Amino acid sequence: MSDLPQTVDIHEEGPREGFQIEPGPIPSADKIALIEALAGTGLRHIQVASFVSPRLVPGWADAEAVVGGFRPREGVRYTALWFNESGLNRAMAFRDRLHLTGSIALSASDAFSVKNLNRGHAENLEAMRRQTALHLKAGLPVTRIGVMAAFGCNYQGDITPAQVVRTVADGLAIAAEQGVTITDVSLADTMGWATPARIERGVGAVRERWPDLRIGLHLHDTRGLAVANAHAGLRLGVRRFDSTVGGLGGCPFAGQKGAAGNICTEELVLLCEEMGVGTGVDLDALIEVGRMAERIVGHQLPSELLRAGSLDAFRKRAA
Amino acid sequence: MSDLPQTVDIHEEGPREGFQIEPGPIPSADKIALIEALAGTGLRHIQVASFVSPRLVPGWADAEAVVGGFRPREGVRYTALWFNESGLNRAMAFRDRLHLTGSIALSASDAFSVKNLNRGHAENLEAMRRQTALHLKAGLPVTRIGVMAAFGCNYQGDITPAQVVRTVADGLAIAAEQGVTITDVSLADTMGWATPARIERGVGAVRERWPDLRIGLHLHDTRGLAVANAHAGLRLGVRRFDSTVGGLGGCPFAGQKGAAGNICTEELVLLCEEMGVGTGVDLDALIEVGRMAERIVGHQLPSELLRAGSLDAFRKRAA
Repeated sequence: MSDLPQTVDIHEEGPREGFQIEPGPIPSADKIALIEALAGTGLRHIQVASFVSPRLVPGWADAEAVVGGFRPREGVRYTALWFNESGLNRAMAFRDRLHLTGSIALSASDAFSVKNLNRGHAENLEAMRRQTALHLKAGLPVTRIGVMAAFGCNYQGDITPAQVVRTVADGLAIAAEQGVTITDVSLADTMGWATPARIERGVGAVRERWPDLRIGLHLHDTRGLAVANAHAGLRLGVRRFDSTVGGLGGCPFAGQKGAAGNICTEELVLLCEEMGVGTGVDLDALIEVGRMAERIVGHQLPSELLRAGSLDAFRKRAA
Repeated sequence: MSDLPQTVDIHEEGPREGFQIEPGPIPSADKIALIEALAGTGLRHIQVASFVSPRLVPGWADAEAVVGGFRPREGVRYTALWFNESGLNRAMAFRDRLHLTGSIALSASDAFSVKNLNRGHAENLEAMRRQTALHLKAGLPVTRIGVMAAFGCNYQGDITPAQVVRTVADGLAIAAEQGVTITDVSLADTMGWATPARIERGVGAVRERWPDLRIGLHLHDTRGLAVANAHAGLRLGVRRFDSTVGGLGGCPFAGQKGAAGNICTEELVLLCEEMGVGTGVDLDALIEVGRMAERIVGHQLPSELLRAGSLDAFRKRAA
């Protein structure tokens, strides 16, 4: 069975990804309830909020209320997202309860960088230089490079493994300039272009060049292939995955309104656990939280498992 | 890249699976329009109707009108389903336009056989003996064994590869008694219990015992893992898959109301074509037919690809 890992780390991003895109408004108390329920399922990494412009992302105008409001659970790391100094400062106010780390965020697609961040790759590198300095000044460790559009791009088309390697190298150069050591690279299938073959080639190329870097996958289910891609990653020994409960999220990009969001956490957990890869997550409890997420957003989420139920539930009935 | 086949045969079952479960009523003309549109996408095998009791399956009360009504396309094989002599006779009336073959349908789960067919495995073997004789008398070739619940069962729990092998052996014994040669075995994940690991073990066990049998997979997306399971099958060199456009179908079994249906044809085509496995299908045309299916049934279907669009569509825009 190839290189299936014994365990994986799942980074639950449902609250952050989900509430930034739902039309809302969703009460802060509901967001807090979801975060606390997720922490009760065995998940150890939960991204709880985005400190972004309330004008651009009204769904996270209440980031302070949510992050200040939930009851942290022992053993769970709560993370948050920000894109600039103002966001960082807002996050820093909660450094007692958030696990804050800096990250060098790049895009393997220049066209996506322009569309999404309004700056090309070169300009973005400059911005990441400044941001890394900012993170270090704030006392945050910078150990991770994130590569968006690592498997293809709606604006640029196919992305080659060589482009991904170049992007990681650019991030490592920034890290080297500033004297920090990168341990983790996250490859994001931002617009749903990955296939198992592309996962194999992309992960393979990065690993061949930098065998000591830990590779994580951030998968979207835009075209329904996310679980096949996760399985391809597992086979390569990838041990870190981002996901969202119920498949919260959806795709905000042009031409894809209504497209699916991230890979569903519960389907990822089912895939792993049924193949002997430990997640530490109680799947039946997580399915209940997925149903709670559907009640909160007021509509059905993409997860099929929420309707079908876990296999263990049927095993118990059959026994 | 393991044993990926160069091409696969896709058996489109959307009309038959979909219209048997939709609350309807759906006009015969719409069913015919869907069948004709599917035949225009490059699909070469389309299951167009189920000759079953109109009392039990009102959605197929118009099987004759549909099967007699569509315009057959050169090079496309149209198939149908039946379960007894009465159904066979109804199908035989259309033998000029249908590709009729007999099949020995068994269940690897005794409990499912009882629930679904109201007879245990032994009784079902007896029924299949009679049905095989009936098919041969009618002049139909009998070359295929179908194994339902091959990867697990809501009523019985886990199903082992040894149980699948025993079931295939039972089918082969019937074939031997009646002097027919089986060339194909279809393993069905009837209730969505398969994982890539179980696909590998189940397909592996059957292939090890009977290396010359062609193995096909009939996958359901009940718990969201269908594309990962299809990919596991492709890696093993499986070349025949059943699927439904848009994911038409849904699961009629107890405790799973609202659960997803078969693997979506267009997601299977995307998976194959993007990895260099030929399907003969025009994916953009098929996506349009999926959207037509949504209009016909009057609700959204599970396929994510219908909302996101193919990669080629974005490649053309990006170029």
